[in-house]
Amino acid sequence: MGHELPHPIDLAAVRRAAGRIAPHVHRTPVLTSHLVNQQAGCQLFFKCENLQRSGAFKARGAHNAVFSLPEKRRKRGVATHSSGNHGAALALAASGAGISAYVVMPDNAPTCKIEAVRAYGGEVRFCEPTLAAREAELDALCHQTGATFVPPFDDPAVIAGQGSCVLELVEQLAEPVDSLLMPVGGGGLLAGSAVAAAALWPDCAVIGAEPAGADDAARSFASGVRQSQLSPRTIADGLRTSLGALNFALIQKHVTAILTVDDADTIAAMRLIWTRMKLLVEPSAAVPLAVVLTRRDLFAGQRVAIVLSGGNADIDALPW
Amino acid sequence: MGHELPHPIDLAAVRRAAGRIAPHVHRTPVLTSHLVNQQAGCQLFFKCENLQRSGAFKARGAHNAVFSLPEKRRKRGVATHSSGNHGAALALAASGAGISAYVVMPDNAPTCKIEAVRAYGGEVRFCEPTLAAREAELDALCHQTGATFVPPFDDPAVIAGQGSCVLELVEQLAEPVDSLLMPVGGGGLLAGSAVAAAALWPDCAVIGAEPAGADDAARSFASGVRQSQLSPRTIADGLRTSLGALNFALIQKHVTAILTVDDADTIAAMRLIWTRMKLLVEPSAAVPLAVVLTRRDLFAGQRVAIVLSGGNADIDALPW
Repeated sequence: MGHELPHPIDLAAVRRAAGRIAPHVHRTPVLTSHLVNQQAGCQLFFKCENLQRSGAFKARGAHNAVFSLPEKRRKRGVATHSSGNHGAALALAASGAGISAYVVMPDNAPTCKIEAVRAYGGEVRFCEPTLAAREAELDALCHQTGATFVPPFDDPAVIAGQGSCVLELVEQLAEPVDSLLMPVGGGGLLAGSAVAAAALWPDCAVIGAEPAGADDAARSFASGVRQSQLSPRTIADGLRTSLGALNFALIQKHVTAILTVDDADTIAAMRLIWTRMKLLVEPSAAVPLAVVLTRRDLFAGQRVAIVLSGGNADIDALPW
Repeated sequence: MGHELPHPIDLAAVRRAAGRIAPHVHRTPVLTSHLVNQQAGCQLFFKCENLQRSGAFKARGAHNAVFSLPEKRRKRGVATHSSGNHGAALALAASGAGISAYVVMPDNAPTCKIEAVRAYGGEVRFCEPTLAAREAELDALCHQTGATFVPPFDDPAVIAGQGSCVLELVEQLAEPVDSLLMPVGGGGLLAGSAVAAAALWPDCAVIGAEPAGADDAARSFASGVRQSQLSPRTIADGLRTSLGALNFALIQKHVTAILTVDDADTIAAMRLIWTRMKLLVEPSAAVPLAVVLTRRDLFAGQRVAIVLSGGNADIDALPW
């Protein structure tokens, strides 16, 4: 993949991605809750990517990456490193294309994450739990099998794929919203969504929501220089990673603000979504609602859309 | 309400109910899961009434009952006895109509159930935990306030309202299904749905799913005489009640079969829905999927619709 694709990441690229992945992913519903609206003081629309295939929006980018590869190259398979939702999503996409997916995981990865990749037919390759070991294993693997590396977020096809959820949202809502929030980790979802929203809802504020304990996107956005996340401390396991380079460039161009929130508020928001909306969401997915509930003044009376990014919570280890 | 309404409970009554309640209830999504289909060996469509307002299909019948009352009578309020979803749904419907809802509950009812009724603006009246005390309190209450009793299931307006979920399902699916399953407790959902399905999908088998430990509907259906449920033993708290009289008559006429399942299978099905579909469902809602998974031969290769009846599970006391 790399950054050398001939096409820019624009609305047309997001539209092509949406068309390409449509046969393979769910058109997820947009749900509302009177009780949550009352509590938030605004009108909320939840785009339920927790109900997406593989349990997260990651299925969009992974399918776009797999199905935009030239056939000859695609047939040699795809590979990635991931201990989270991207690995499972890539395994699912590869399975749909009838090709192999190799997922490099640290040998101390939780069993449930390993099982998720295998449940979708992915082949897990273990390595020592260091960045160097992971990259060495991935390089060796791609060299040996001819598989194409599909990065989890810092990739044009992945970013364009993630943006397709906003195309659906625009079709599903009768009118634009005033604010659109989603979590930001590596920035695939936020960058792709911001590209689509900037073109289709030009007056909408696009806001990244981030845990205070992993606030590299907020620091990068404020300083104008991409910062790393060295020691993330947050329950939102999907958001511990550092912002990607391509992602940061698009976020600088199209995003209005990055707002942070404490884990205690994220856990309260997660519990509210479970109990009031009957939706299983993982901690990362609750971060945007936590932002809205702790910054009511910013959103009072607005129409606000939130992307519920994923539902892969461990139901045997809940944070309450 | 009573059984003396001039209109029969037919497709036209269900259609009138659907129109009457449309401004007040959600049109719930129909979701699918490749993984659950693989496990079940058939193509499943889940009508998500757990995502309905008040967290259960009960909002449909309660709104139809409230909004079909003549205005003068409606203004004096509504009343019921319930320690479950109907009480909360009636409180919600009354609140939408700007009238009072009185809910008689045993003084040993769980705090969370009491809170649910109050959260929707209902007024809770406590009584001793016996049938006699409950009926006496309800009679006194209706006499004193002029409120109309809205029964939880044995009522034409309630039955017609519950049936509206099948009207939506018929609109949402491109083709009829071979089998339609839903839980049966008092029989409001099953009776109303069977009336609609018999008219719109005449070739579809309509199946009630019931816990083996509260199998009065299965016994009634088999014997042709309505049986009581004296000592229910099941985790599916919404299904411990006995089948209603009107409900039984409609079920005899329009339902194909009542199938029972053990609680262990219900818990496994509930966990599957939580982990694979990211939907919070209460035990009662998982009974139909448990039936499908334990009777694969009956449904092999079919298109099967299941009504996920509710999501009011206590997330601090999960059965696994």
